[in-house]
Amino acid sequence: MAVYTEVSDEDLAGFIASYDLGALLSYKGIAEGVENTNYLVHTEKGPYFLTLFEKRVAAADLPFFLGLMEHLSKAGLTCPTPVHDAEGRVLRTLAGRPAALVTFLEGVWIRRPQARHCAAVGQAMARLHLAGQGFPLSRKNALGLSGWRPLFERFRARADEIAPGLAGTIEQELDHLEARWPSALPQGVIHADLFPDNVFFLGDALSGLIDFYFACNDALSYDIAVTLNAWCFESDHSFNITKGQALLKGYQSVRPISAEERDALPLLARGAALRFLLTRAHDWLHTSKDALVSPKDPVEYLRRLKFHRSIKAASEYGFEAQA
Amino acid sequence: MAVYTEVSDEDLAGFIASYDLGALLSYKGIAEGVENTNYLVHTEKGPYFLTLFEKRVAAADLPFFLGLMEHLSKAGLTCPTPVHDAEGRVLRTLAGRPAALVTFLEGVWIRRPQARHCAAVGQAMARLHLAGQGFPLSRKNALGLSGWRPLFERFRARADEIAPGLAGTIEQELDHLEARWPSALPQGVIHADLFPDNVFFLGDALSGLIDFYFACNDALSYDIAVTLNAWCFESDHSFNITKGQALLKGYQSVRPISAEERDALPLLARGAALRFLLTRAHDWLHTSKDALVSPKDPVEYLRRLKFHRSIKAASEYGFEAQA
Repeated sequence: MAVYTEVSDEDLAGFIASYDLGALLSYKGIAEGVENTNYLVHTEKGPYFLTLFEKRVAAADLPFFLGLMEHLSKAGLTCPTPVHDAEGRVLRTLAGRPAALVTFLEGVWIRRPQARHCAAVGQAMARLHLAGQGFPLSRKNALGLSGWRPLFERFRARADEIAPGLAGTIEQELDHLEARWPSALPQGVIHADLFPDNVFFLGDALSGLIDFYFACNDALSYDIAVTLNAWCFESDHSFNITKGQALLKGYQSVRPISAEERDALPLLARGAALRFLLTRAHDWLHTSKDALVSPKDPVEYLRRLKFHRSIKAASEYGFEAQA
Repeated sequence: MAVYTEVSDEDLAGFIASYDLGALLSYKGIAEGVENTNYLVHTEKGPYFLTLFEKRVAAADLPFFLGLMEHLSKAGLTCPTPVHDAEGRVLRTLAGRPAALVTFLEGVWIRRPQARHCAAVGQAMARLHLAGQGFPLSRKNALGLSGWRPLFERFRARADEIAPGLAGTIEQELDHLEARWPSALPQGVIHADLFPDNVFFLGDALSGLIDFYFACNDALSYDIAVTLNAWCFESDHSFNITKGQALLKGYQSVRPISAEERDALPLLARGAALRFLLTRAHDWLHTSKDALVSPKDPVEYLRRLKFHRSIKAASEYGFEAQA
């Protein structure tokens, strides 16, 4: 949680004046978001969300992210949508950073998801996958299969500081996944980071999806694998099949999962667990002690990885018997 | 800037349900505030400000602070006012902390105050001093004259790490002030921390005062001395007499300053500079490297202190010639 870039009242008032939103009423730096600086801005037209993109986000990717949010909103998905300034621009500069103002989405994220929340996120993810069709820009998954080994090499020498034998486990897992990773699964735009803090609810109703800054083109079923990892494990690291079932059923009520996608799921889930193990392990070893953001525990994803390795068939994730 | 205490969606939804504010719509941890944890909460009735009081705030002082905000609001001052829950309570418990929900005040704080802002803050401070009359609770100024020497003793041995000779300068200054500190000046409720970030503006109009968590009973003119220190120095540490004049004139347009108060001002201003020098020096030497909040530079207030020592008459702060 952090505000990396301070914005002055004068700079922001000038910035807001270039939109058709009336005067600036207030703005507060938000203590969440690991990658970027966020402000909740009140103008005479209502609340908006201002993001200043920090160095970890590639400026070349911003048209993809902002264009995607606009495309998805127009396709009926509830997500933040960029506001156009008087000259029609959505990507601006503020306080020396690329910046965008997006609509503010009401909702809270669920700290302890239940099966009903998993069903709702499954449905919303499938809607996102359908809504993404026809989006003309594309972005490679920088944290997909081909990105994992280079990321591993950056901390390999120190990996065993996290858990004894971790370097060997990751090495073995990379070999396994690289030899078997499926390439013919249905592709499209995926969220790629659909964790509970990126899904808002109002009461029990899902009110929207946020944070598209990992979105990319990849296998749609890889997104399902990420989301199973993110939503269906308990705090004791055990897989909750009731939640898995709810998520998959919710998804399939909107977009049916093909036999190939289903059969690939255990492998995709291993890959997804490895992806978060790798980024967390990297950040764990590279975060300075006085960083504004505390790194997340990588071992959580080592445990999930081991669970997925034990899976013999996708039915163990909760797929209901096919008719 | 920091969120020290995380509040879960379930806990907050339950908390909000005990007020007559409709359902919880969203909440964001605010990256400002050094002492407490703050959330900007949207409910169906509008935006509110939630504060969880952290350990640095004495729980015994909370009825004073909350009662004062309510008293001042009723007396017509624009400031946050505590919201009563269905049982009439303003001080509650949330996530294991004392907590209060107050009204949300629109406005932004001015990073580079001009003379017109100083005039407005002078006026608002005088209104606060008048509005505070009749408030039945009282609170000693914990950071007033009698608190300075004990605070100094906590870092005296290391003071010269900040600036060579600092310990001697402070010692000398304490002796000087303790021998001469006035006791017969008009007393009342003072804000005691009326820095630019605690004063909101909408355009050029002052829209309200916030953060009453240093408020206490003390000489009203000591509040003027604090505010002169906080608003009327330039970034090169020189005193701007135009701003001083504007502030004093703004104040006197609401509440005349007596001859005794005026004559005491150079001494009070030295005391106010010393008070911020002491707290900043203490925090500078005691803040751990991985703290969420960066300490402020104490030397800034050493320079102000030296300026005030050079003052021969209150007129040098910008008092206009008396008729």
